[in-house]
Amino acid sequence: MDARPEVPTRDAIDSAHARIAPHVRTTPVLRPGAGAFGVEADLTLKLELLQHTGSFKPRGAFNKLLTSSVPEAGVVAASGGNFGLAVAYACRRLGYQAEIFVPSTSPLTKIDRVRAEGATVHVIEGLYDDASEAARARQSETGALGMHPFDQPEVVAGQGTIGIELSRQVPEADTVLVSCGGGGLVGGIAAWFRKDVRVVAVEPEGSRCLDAALAAGEPTDVTVDSIAADSLGARRVGSIAFETARTYVERVALVPDAAIGTAQRALWRELRLVAEPGGAAALAALMHGAYAPARDERVVVLVCGANGDPADAIG
Amino acid sequence: MDARPEVPTRDAIDSAHARIAPHVRTTPVLRPGAGAFGVEADLTLKLELLQHTGSFKPRGAFNKLLTSSVPEAGVVAASGGNFGLAVAYACRRLGYQAEIFVPSTSPLTKIDRVRAEGATVHVIEGLYDDASEAARARQSETGALGMHPFDQPEVVAGQGTIGIELSRQVPEADTVLVSCGGGGLVGGIAAWFRKDVRVVAVEPEGSRCLDAALAAGEPTDVTVDSIAADSLGARRVGSIAFETARTYVERVALVPDAAIGTAQRALWRELRLVAEPGGAAALAALMHGAYAPARDERVVVLVCGANGDPADAIG
Repeated sequence: MDARPEVPTRDAIDSAHARIAPHVRTTPVLRPGAGAFGVEADLTLKLELLQHTGSFKPRGAFNKLLTSSVPEAGVVAASGGNFGLAVAYACRRLGYQAEIFVPSTSPLTKIDRVRAEGATVHVIEGLYDDASEAARARQSETGALGMHPFDQPEVVAGQGTIGIELSRQVPEADTVLVSCGGGGLVGGIAAWFRKDVRVVAVEPEGSRCLDAALAAGEPTDVTVDSIAADSLGARRVGSIAFETARTYVERVALVPDAAIGTAQRALWRELRLVAEPGGAAALAALMHGAYAPARDERVVVLVCGANGDPADAIG
Repeated sequence: MDARPEVPTRDAIDSAHARIAPHVRTTPVLRPGAGAFGVEADLTLKLELLQHTGSFKPRGAFNKLLTSSVPEAGVVAASGGNFGLAVAYACRRLGYQAEIFVPSTSPLTKIDRVRAEGATVHVIEGLYDDASEAARARQSETGALGMHPFDQPEVVAGQGTIGIELSRQVPEADTVLVSCGGGGLVGGIAAWFRKDVRVVAVEPEGSRCLDAALAAGEPTDVTVDSIAADSLGARRVGSIAFETARTYVERVALVPDAAIGTAQRALWRELRLVAEPGGAAALAALMHGAYAPARDERVVVLVCGANGDPADAIG
């Protein structure tokens, strides 16, 4: 068995923050007001869906690229959407070639956006694993830099920079709710807070790789069936995220797909924000009661992605 | 001729701010990053479209209601959309009856949202003036409190509270671009800044009541023909806004409808924000060049409404 990966340090996240600052947005927070979303908690939303490309993914992508020696052949990544879009965007900004392998099951909107960023897109028949296999083969062939959507230390540290922003924007926070796919986002944020603030991971009931890994004591495969699968549908949690979560994540809250759809439509009704299912999952945990804060608990919910079908979000 | 109305004082705006604070959101600002929107200025967006009901209008509505003695008969207002929605929302929160008179030309989305806030909606055949006439008749009949969308001092002072937030959020701002319909918003903000910060009013070329009034030396009727007419389509600028603007507004920038549509789609592409035409007009002035900032000028653009047809905004 491989050596256990290390939990990203605060120093690593601090360095990432300074490194990527010229390239990413400090996304705003908003207090929606008493009673909003039918929730009694003292609620603040972190609007990371206003990040470049509509998700948090550029943070990790820029940090990986800016700490790597990128070969002439450029960069190869497999992604069903947000990560591929972020890699394509970051490569365009930094002047690198990008080849993105996307499974044929990806939403067309996302595929089109990756193409619009100037990346070469290879649509691979099948699921994410098939695209990932094709990306690996291509990387061996060309010698390009391979980028993983969540299980590289620089990627996790990059996502963790959201924690730094929150420390400044909501210093009084008790709890942060963060959706979890492969775990790069919640891992990075939990590694930053190191229990100074309670970090709760939110997974769809039908896509619970972190929950399963914590129960099994090690990363393990799960089946994936959720409306949030295209952004949260990792079959197995990342090893870095797992090591971080077992120590620094308070617990996993599981939400049914219906609650995710309800949260998407509530974001539209209350704020005119178009969130994708994965981006609304953390709010769903609060609205649905999968996470029930104490009276007066100051809760931050991360809204982290906007690249769904607007028609679903608007309802 | 009536006595000239007074420009709202900073004290009046300060008082309004304290009064409405429990009821409105402090909306966030965002720096979209170098080169965003194809603009070289040092740009900050004030995301007022995240306000309750999707526009800035609750600020003035709450300030008027909280400084008025509201009779048993409740409140009557005429509005093609955002103001009616804000009045309905504020009345629901404060426990008052609201009757909203809307012209039959209003977008159905807006009419439905007013109804969803629990107001009694009267759809009046014709244009805004017909709805306004019907509202006045009803008000005389019932003794309800009549609310005007932009030409009441409490309403203008309420909209001016955005200036207070900007003073805190972007203290280094040189210039603020604000769209102008009847002028309540730009009047309130200019009355707050009193030339400490340059305030530029933005009007559609086809709906320029402030521009015409400044040229004529007094409020005068204009014809209205613009894609932003349902929110910016006032035939005559408010008297308070006119008095304020002649002293405290730097100038009017005029934008063609096509530039407004381009700005709406850019907000979607760059930020996944759904802005209505009136909400995107100020950004259009910057993108289109109707307002050309100096090198290194620090410009704030107010994005102030989200209640258009999402299909138009997403493009």
